[in-house]
Amino acid sequence: MTFGVVEGARGEEFVSAVAGHPFGDIQFTGDRFPLAEVRLVAPMLPSKIVAIGKNYADHVREMGGDEPPAEPVIFSKPSTSVIGPGEAVAYPEKLSQRVDFEGELAVVIGRLCREVPVERAHEVIFGYTCANDVTARDLQKRDGQWTRAKGFDTFCPLGPWIETVLDPSDLAITTTVNGEIRQSGRTSQLLHDVPTLVAYVSAVMTLIPGDVILTGTPAGVGPLTVGDEVSVGIEGIGTLTNRVVSRD
Amino acid sequence: MTFGVVEGARGEEFVSAVAGHPFGDIQFTGDRFPLAEVRLVAPMLPSKIVAIGKNYADHVREMGGDEPPAEPVIFSKPSTSVIGPGEAVAYPEKLSQRVDFEGELAVVIGRLCREVPVERAHEVIFGYTCANDVTARDLQKRDGQWTRAKGFDTFCPLGPWIETVLDPSDLAITTTVNGEIRQSGRTSQLLHDVPTLVAYVSAVMTLIPGDVILTGTPAGVGPLTVGDEVSVGIEGIGTLTNRVVSRD
Repeated sequence: MTFGVVEGARGEEFVSAVAGHPFGDIQFTGDRFPLAEVRLVAPMLPSKIVAIGKNYADHVREMGGDEPPAEPVIFSKPSTSVIGPGEAVAYPEKLSQRVDFEGELAVVIGRLCREVPVERAHEVIFGYTCANDVTARDLQKRDGQWTRAKGFDTFCPLGPWIETVLDPSDLAITTTVNGEIRQSGRTSQLLHDVPTLVAYVSAVMTLIPGDVILTGTPAGVGPLTVGDEVSVGIEGIGTLTNRVVSRD
Repeated sequence: MTFGVVEGARGEEFVSAVAGHPFGDIQFTGDRFPLAEVRLVAPMLPSKIVAIGKNYADHVREMGGDEPPAEPVIFSKPSTSVIGPGEAVAYPEKLSQRVDFEGELAVVIGRLCREVPVERAHEVIFGYTCANDVTARDLQKRDGQWTRAKGFDTFCPLGPWIETVLDPSDLAITTTVNGEIRQSGRTSQLLHDVPTLVAYVSAVMTLIPGDVILTGTPAGVGPLTVGDEVSVGIEGIGTLTNRVVSRD
């Protein structure tokens, strides 16, 4: 297993292997593989995943909320919830009867940092990837705190890779289930934008290379069932696809 | 920096250094140091800290709650919030005007595990330590989700060490501020006991050696101010002491 850089024309991409980790100056090993022959796993192992709730106004409304909150609402998902592209989301049918997809833009941190000013947020961002903030909606409502509902193993698909050269301010974000479009938003609709979120979270806790901030989901969230194939696609990044299997 | 085993009579304890990590069979390096000459840091670096809310009835009442919840309420603290004995809790005065102590029994996991049955919980527990679930009470009330309020750097003192041979079912737990007793409970008052919590949390997420479950706080929580010295003492374990400094 190795980190690598994905390059090349569409349909002819290859992966150049990187020695060690990709934060800071990278060094290539010289090994190159066609992307089609590589099995991608989650593009990083975050020490923490900080997620933002209620960050698209139309999603706040569909959840029955009145006004979006003045400040970002933060919660977290455990590192054990992370899976990569192509891995299966395990539906915990004994504990939940309603598991929803939530497509999101994920920010990957590249530098140890805290109390980052908004105008310097770009300096600590390594890149962007797609995320699915899978949520046991029934448990979320019952518990009040969201940690259990959003913390199951496999409930944080990330990938397919990290795009390091990207302006995140106005990207189309689309979630499909079995090929049917369910969420279709733009990151320009974020109530609190990426630099604001990096500043807000890092004012509380030190961020470490590989840490991930999930920026919230647009309207259209809905249930998954066993056998579904769910994809989160973001303009300029790529598409993260996972199927749903029964855990039990 | 090394792991070690604390042994010997009270006042004459010494630390025997351990090669590598302490999970599984341990091997001593042969180095021994008087405890008084050793600087203890947090006894583990947890990949995650899962905490339980509202797990003592008298604390539920003091927080204005009615009935304790039928199921444990779980939330989490980031690994970046951990400090060891003697390290300072940094009061984020720009963001909070009310930071409380919460003395708690912490369970340290010793084995990779998931879906642990209650009756086998003891097999996955490495030991017990003292914890202070420091909480920005004003932010906790304002946010609804507790992640920010409980997630600041330094808000999870752990230590002074891990007691590996201990029955956790009826231990006195005492929190003092500047030597004055503020919390005085017994772990027999836990609404959901230690084996139940291990089963409950591991039904959701895989636990990894070093992961920590905080079992909840008894009544008597209250504010800290800069300059305070706060101690959490648990019968059969020891005492975790930290002072409070201004972050800003």
